[in-house]
Amino acid sequence: MSKTPVSALGEFGLIEKISEWVTLKDSDVLKSIGDDAAVFHPAEGMEQLISTDCLVEGIHFDLTYQSLRHLGYKSVAVNVSDIYAMNGTPQYITLALALPQKITVELLEEFYAGVHLACKDFHVAVIGGDLSASSGNMFISVTVTGFANRDEIVYRNGAKPGDLIVVSGNPGRSFAGLKVLIREKEFYLSDPENFAPTLDRHSWVIERHLAPKPRTEVLSWLNQKRVKPTAMIDLSDGLAGDLFHICKQSGVGAVLDELSLPVTEPIRSVAEQFDEESTKWALFGGEDYELLFTVNPEWRLIIESNDELTIIGEITDQTETMLLREAEGDETEIEKQGWNHFN
Amino acid sequence: MSKTPVSALGEFGLIEKISEWVTLKDSDVLKSIGDDAAVFHPAEGMEQLISTDCLVEGIHFDLTYQSLRHLGYKSVAVNVSDIYAMNGTPQYITLALALPQKITVELLEEFYAGVHLACKDFHVAVIGGDLSASSGNMFISVTVTGFANRDEIVYRNGAKPGDLIVVSGNPGRSFAGLKVLIREKEFYLSDPENFAPTLDRHSWVIERHLAPKPRTEVLSWLNQKRVKPTAMIDLSDGLAGDLFHICKQSGVGAVLDELSLPVTEPIRSVAEQFDEESTKWALFGGEDYELLFTVNPEWRLIIESNDELTIIGEITDQTETMLLREAEGDETEIEKQGWNHFN
Repeated sequence: MSKTPVSALGEFGLIEKISEWVTLKDSDVLKSIGDDAAVFHPAEGMEQLISTDCLVEGIHFDLTYQSLRHLGYKSVAVNVSDIYAMNGTPQYITLALALPQKITVELLEEFYAGVHLACKDFHVAVIGGDLSASSGNMFISVTVTGFANRDEIVYRNGAKPGDLIVVSGNPGRSFAGLKVLIREKEFYLSDPENFAPTLDRHSWVIERHLAPKPRTEVLSWLNQKRVKPTAMIDLSDGLAGDLFHICKQSGVGAVLDELSLPVTEPIRSVAEQFDEESTKWALFGGEDYELLFTVNPEWRLIIESNDELTIIGEITDQTETMLLREAEGDETEIEKQGWNHFN
Repeated sequence: MSKTPVSALGEFGLIEKISEWVTLKDSDVLKSIGDDAAVFHPAEGMEQLISTDCLVEGIHFDLTYQSLRHLGYKSVAVNVSDIYAMNGTPQYITLALALPQKITVELLEEFYAGVHLACKDFHVAVIGGDLSASSGNMFISVTVTGFANRDEIVYRNGAKPGDLIVVSGNPGRSFAGLKVLIREKEFYLSDPENFAPTLDRHSWVIERHLAPKPRTEVLSWLNQKRVKPTAMIDLSDGLAGDLFHICKQSGVGAVLDELSLPVTEPIRSVAEQFDEESTKWALFGGEDYELLFTVNPEWRLIIESNDELTIIGEITDQTETMLLREAEGDETEIEKQGWNHFN
């Protein structure tokens, strides 16, 4: 692969390249990349949604095991996930990047290939952004806009005592993937000459960490069954931390059944290799980008009919108290904090 | 000033604080900070505008001479400037921050005090964002949304041969301020014990660098006089680079009169201290956040009646060629590149 420094193109030249890399036609866009601001015609009769995420090298990603293509995909995926978590439809993306010198034009093209793929998967278009050099880390900030019918928006604050707590997929899966990746990096650094990667048999957990996919099919299915969650959030900080957001904003508590948590064999097996409890990973592992929501118990049978969803507990009236009903029957309080990047 | 580490509050605690620091009431906002996405009702019958900027420590700012309060103000100001440059009305802001450990809660409160002040000045509200730690530099990314009547939006691509080229304020002023600040920093570093700041007499140029204010009054005045520019941009990359954007996108060229450039005495005097040409600063100095626009020559008298505006040249049919008519009468070609952070 050639190694063209970004300075060879300059910011103007780079912006032209990026416009080529991510072009998607959209008749509601009056002006895309290339003016002071992008201009679009808002969806008629809809409310506008907007959300921003940042991904920081050394905090959210490590370029020794994260490919630029996966990183581009993930940057878009984690951001549209926030719009889905409102039961909205994501539409447009702006992307601000600060690039250290090691990021060549070729690596950037890889990054945008991932961005473009995610844009196609989630039917969104990049319509703006900003580029800067960075004398330190690589920084990525993504903003997504979307729209939703006012009556269909699901906030975090509508959970009621007695509601079922439902999660998609397998919380802890992304964290298991991260643990495997970090271990491989350590193996590699301790003996680069004889390093033989053993990632293949862990691809299911690693995939969720490197290129998570929001559960759009679950939302379509819920909408089709006319099940409207009372509260919803996407899992970024970890199940416990994100459930706490719902509890706090809804003025309720929660009890989770340890035995119901969808901790599958691959997650359990990785946790065992690290001599850690997989339940903890399910509760506190971040970045799964699964959906966590609450519904009226009248929907129990419908929810149970969907293999991608698991009922993991129930909302209680004990404000801001989250309990775990353990396998042995004891109830213990769950810590409220999710990931704290600042520790 | 106390020095509370951000980790003492954690991300959740910090988000609560920030909500308090920047609260502004807006009846069109259905959900502000605190859910997966913010929700707002778009302005009826208007097009939506969106723009993103990033500010990177070590590239765009230096915390040794930039106060956090000024930085907060500037982060919002440079971003709303892009909406004004479309002849739009800025409305909502999202703010992503990556914070190194040296940024304490108290410094962050200063930063948000600046953000809040700018929000009041430009009638915008912070409705979302993201926070992360940073193991390196401080990184700021701001996204602004706004609205405009479809017929009133001014793009970069409408300049026509014969149009007048007009600029507000004094290009080069921000760069002169930056030069003074960098010199002061060097003085300080070379002899911290005996350092006596001499910034006061340069406050006019420094102010434009540290806390630039977009020219909203010029836009109101143009709209009131029913003067619609044919093309417009805000000066971030420098006059030459930004004029080139207009030329390129409009398929035209430009000729600037050196004698018309509004290089005032304070800028000239700083340039002389550095033994540099003030014309170059006016052409290539960045970050003035002044308005650069083109208008039909029928508006000459009206434009000349406004002290904040200067006619500096004329659009030509020589595609992408920018000339400077020098004081002595010679015409020389102007370099097309603006700032290149990547060099």
